[in-house]
Amino acid sequence: MPDQIQELPNCSLARALSVVGERWSLLIIREAVMGSSRFDEFHTRLGIARNILQARLKVLVEAGVFQKAYANGNARIPFYSLTPKGWELLPAIASLLQWGDRWMDDGKGPPVILLDGSNDNSIARVSLRDDGGQIIDPRRIVLRPGPGANARTRKRLAPQL
Amino acid sequence: MPDQIQELPNCSLARALSVVGERWSLLIIREAVMGSSRFDEFHTRLGIARNILQARLKVLVEAGVFQKAYANGNARIPFYSLTPKGWELLPAIASLLQWGDRWMDDGKGPPVILLDGSNDNSIARVSLRDDGGQIIDPRRIVLRPGPGANARTRKRLAPQL
Repeated sequence: MPDQIQELPNCSLARALSVVGERWSLLIIREAVMGSSRFDEFHTRLGIARNILQARLKVLVEAGVFQKAYANGNARIPFYSLTPKGWELLPAIASLLQWGDRWMDDGKGPPVILLDGSNDNSIARVSLRDDGGQIIDPRRIVLRPGPGANARTRKRLAPQL
Repeated sequence: MPDQIQELPNCSLARALSVVGERWSLLIIREAVMGSSRFDEFHTRLGIARNILQARLKVLVEAGVFQKAYANGNARIPFYSLTPKGWELLPAIASLLQWGDRWMDDGKGPPVILLDGSNDNSIARVSLRDDGGQIIDPRRIVLRPGPGANARTRKRLAPQL
């Protein structure tokens, strides 16, 4: 998917992945959650090449996932912080991380545990739920055309009679 | 990230992305949820190049996200179906899709809506919750070393005194 979106695909997943679907993007966001904010911190801690980091941060800033700012005392070195839009990626990131914990364990258990920092409560497995909070088996999910569906999407998702 | 993992990174997110972090992988899984199971269905409906689709399906089958099988009557053409491991990616996929709905809307509303097919209930926004089901603000999340943390991860996540 191109860095600059020419025409939005008629799929919000594809739209989301046009911003965060490139290699490294979600790891950069996780790194910010762990406290990194300077270019050199991301570079060193992730072990990512400088040019790739630069390209990813540019896309993420342009998309409004990160904001770039300069501290008062040190106006030359920017720091990057997650915006509300960026923080809203945490459920997806946590879900992928938990999936890795469950399915790609090396026998030693999770390398990292997510907690609610205000009370040390553990985070439940990220699940699909209905509006009443009841967990829904993913196999029960069906997709229906929404108000933004184009003709092709409507045809694809028409009930199979 | 290489298709074949040589050494597992000490991060379950990086492990997960080594399987589903390549361009197209999550879209292929979404396509399976929409009912595609044949190579040509994925190829045509996603508009993905055959060689890339082949490479992605190979990784996803090897990782146990898809299983490849042959129908009785047509033993030459395989079909691909999601395994339990694959279905467990749905919360992450739904969360990214909802994020695209909220932040990358083109003004027309969501192209696709997810429902519980057993009763047409809508799916709530995928959220971080504690074990009691209470929604947690992502900004409150802290990361702590788990049983599988290596020395470097432990040092990274040591409390800042």
